[in-house]
Amino acid sequence: MRLSRFFLPTLKENPSEAQIVSHRLMLRAGMVRQHTAGIYNWLPLGTRVLQNIANIVRDEQNCAGAQEIIMPTIQSGELWKESGRYDDYGPEMLRIKDRHDRDMLYGPTHEEVVTDIFRYNVKSYRELPKNLYQIHWKFRDEVRPRFGVMRGREFLMKDAYSFDIDYERSKHAYNQMFVAYLRTFARMGLKAIPMKADSGPIGGDLSHEFIVLAETGESAVFCHKTLLEKPVPENVNYEGDLQPIVDDWTSYYAATEEKHDPVAAAQIGGELVSARGIEVGHIFHFGKKYSDPMKANVIGPDGNQTAVFMGSYGIGVSRLVGAIIEANHDDAGIIWPASVAPFHVGIINLKTGDTACDDACAKLHKAIKLNGLDVLCDDRDERAGVKFADMDLIGLPWQVIVGPKGVAKGVVELKNRRTGAREELSMDAVITKLTVAA
Amino acid sequence: MRLSRFFLPTLKENPSEAQIVSHRLMLRAGMVRQHTAGIYNWLPLGTRVLQNIANIVRDEQNCAGAQEIIMPTIQSGELWKESGRYDDYGPEMLRIKDRHDRDMLYGPTHEEVVTDIFRYNVKSYRELPKNLYQIHWKFRDEVRPRFGVMRGREFLMKDAYSFDIDYERSKHAYNQMFVAYLRTFARMGLKAIPMKADSGPIGGDLSHEFIVLAETGESAVFCHKTLLEKPVPENVNYEGDLQPIVDDWTSYYAATEEKHDPVAAAQIGGELVSARGIEVGHIFHFGKKYSDPMKANVIGPDGNQTAVFMGSYGIGVSRLVGAIIEANHDDAGIIWPASVAPFHVGIINLKTGDTACDDACAKLHKAIKLNGLDVLCDDRDERAGVKFADMDLIGLPWQVIVGPKGVAKGVVELKNRRTGAREELSMDAVITKLTVAA
Repeated sequence: MRLSRFFLPTLKENPSEAQIVSHRLMLRAGMVRQHTAGIYNWLPLGTRVLQNIANIVRDEQNCAGAQEIIMPTIQSGELWKESGRYDDYGPEMLRIKDRHDRDMLYGPTHEEVVTDIFRYNVKSYRELPKNLYQIHWKFRDEVRPRFGVMRGREFLMKDAYSFDIDYERSKHAYNQMFVAYLRTFARMGLKAIPMKADSGPIGGDLSHEFIVLAETGESAVFCHKTLLEKPVPENVNYEGDLQPIVDDWTSYYAATEEKHDPVAAAQIGGELVSARGIEVGHIFHFGKKYSDPMKANVIGPDGNQTAVFMGSYGIGVSRLVGAIIEANHDDAGIIWPASVAPFHVGIINLKTGDTACDDACAKLHKAIKLNGLDVLCDDRDERAGVKFADMDLIGLPWQVIVGPKGVAKGVVELKNRRTGAREELSMDAVITKLTVAA
Repeated sequence: MRLSRFFLPTLKENPSEAQIVSHRLMLRAGMVRQHTAGIYNWLPLGTRVLQNIANIVRDEQNCAGAQEIIMPTIQSGELWKESGRYDDYGPEMLRIKDRHDRDMLYGPTHEEVVTDIFRYNVKSYRELPKNLYQIHWKFRDEVRPRFGVMRGREFLMKDAYSFDIDYERSKHAYNQMFVAYLRTFARMGLKAIPMKADSGPIGGDLSHEFIVLAETGESAVFCHKTLLEKPVPENVNYEGDLQPIVDDWTSYYAATEEKHDPVAAAQIGGELVSARGIEVGHIFHFGKKYSDPMKANVIGPDGNQTAVFMGSYGIGVSRLVGAIIEANHDDAGIIWPASVAPFHVGIINLKTGDTACDDACAKLHKAIKLNGLDVLCDDRDERAGVKFADMDLIGLPWQVIVGPKGVAKGVVELKNRRTGAREELSMDAVITKLTVAA
């Protein structure tokens, strides 16, 4: 992609409305623009990152045996009356009357809808287990939306729902999501720690939050330092027993400020880490809370109707864009982990209009792209300083700097955005190095 | 994917609420379930098809130079007051009050929002042309939703918006979308004919509908028979002059019933084809209709502010699922074109539990998948008749039938869903043939 064509409205100044670094950088890097309070437009750069994140989430959900569906954003209020949440859910639920004056709402979550799908389409325990997920937009009418996409009103979420015949198998479904979440966040270059949590309005007896550590995180968290170094499970057999993995991760102290117990924590002594965190995922086991009132029954092995055991499992997909930036930035801008970067490589043409530079850039662009990497080439008619600043700001993992002196010698400069390391290389060597690094 | 795990609630009987064949087959094949009038849940099989279609649309939009963004579903009413459409748009617009009593709406279209993005972020003609698109959900509160996903209330659409400095360049943007649409629908195995259209509530001076021909189509259309045989453009240079392609396609008679002119049509004589059609795309050129009132200006080459020329370009992505079925089915069920099929191959295990059959199916499943094809293996404990019927119903392009007699001889049966042709082949030959065909 040539930057002269790409829609990338970067800003030099810090926008005054942005209080936190990810919000500032997302506005400055031309990733999003506010439509109205808590509601955002995703511009091309932001859209690419959001899709990369969604695809990692999707891939790990599929590996864990969940199946993708799409439920509507606009729901009938009737189901929520059946579950008892229509009146319980406060003003955060956007309530709507359609033209026939029926009670509708913009789904803040989908337990009712998915339970309704289940009860009309699954009849026997032999069809279990099932885990259905979607990656879709939700709306919560926050009274004071803030922090950009971190606490918006319209946001993208992955929500999965598991259905099992008994408690044990339902716990296995919970463990599958627990392990999938460890892997999902690690693939985005994040350190996410599962912490025991309250289950709030979703309900249930067992619940974990996944908290990403970032110096600029929204809240204080405490955990055993072993958790910071723990490698995430590889080559997981999701059919096998996952309890040992879950037990391992939950055997160390880890708590959000709400749940923090200074007495228990004190026993860890010097191993206790106090840090800042951002919630990016939340998993719930709630048994029959929805299946009982909504009569989501199947015929069990004994021939009798029985309500299924359920869990639900959320990941804040649009929130992750902010969380990744909170955990990956410096004074100059964003530093994308390669797996979610909007482009892998940025080429800076220091002298647009110079035939040798233009040719070298075109050749690099084509060769790198042929090797399967996404490239953004800054071919704008701008000063070198503007190009350097914008490229650092948007945070692509690698920069290739092409100037007339180097091109005359047959070399270009390769810069690693994270380390700042620079080296002069021949064009062929750059292409090889980038391909190997990817 | 093993069918014993896949969430595929097929129905034997025709659902009484479905009036048209695509609606019947989508319900029977377990692709969708109605949530409430005109609002659907997409189950795993339907979700896979919808995503395949969206990806073809996305790919062709990118090739034509459009850039993907995501605009919110919930919009502020203020912008619509500015454009003058807030009062004009009738009860089809879902109007909402948020908790602060502000006028919001669920976007039925996005001209206002995208024009608002443009005016705050593009300043000079040097940043043009721009074409921004999204693939996102929309809501139109139809008074009588019907025909399943063909006329639903919540639906998935691709909408693109072009911005240019003058009429000529704006016409080029229109031509780019015209050609991209020809290619998009052809890739889905559809014959789509562009027909001159009224521009309705979007407005403007130039507009074409793209109509898919299907015997069961919703309305009568008339066109010159040359259009039915015309190959779509290959290897398009979207920077070059596209007017000859557009002129070629628009030089033949083609009209929907509304626009049909029996006198003009009579002159074509025996070359006139009368058929049934389904609208799947609509492109509009409307000049300054939104940029003028909303002050979407740029500095022109002469240094003066000037309102930009715009167009908008829609494709009904969820509607296409229905349209493709209307154009591709028989009495036994759906017949997917390979490019949008939810799986490429279905394996039917005629004797689940028989070690030789189970092993053969597992081996085929693995080998076909390794070659990059999606496979659904019917390993359920069901009668052969049920498996044959379900496999025909869901319409995968290829079926591999594995029975004990064949396996003993080292052969399986390969069936082409569209032609019905069957042949006995060795397992290796089947794997090779499927890979070559894909």
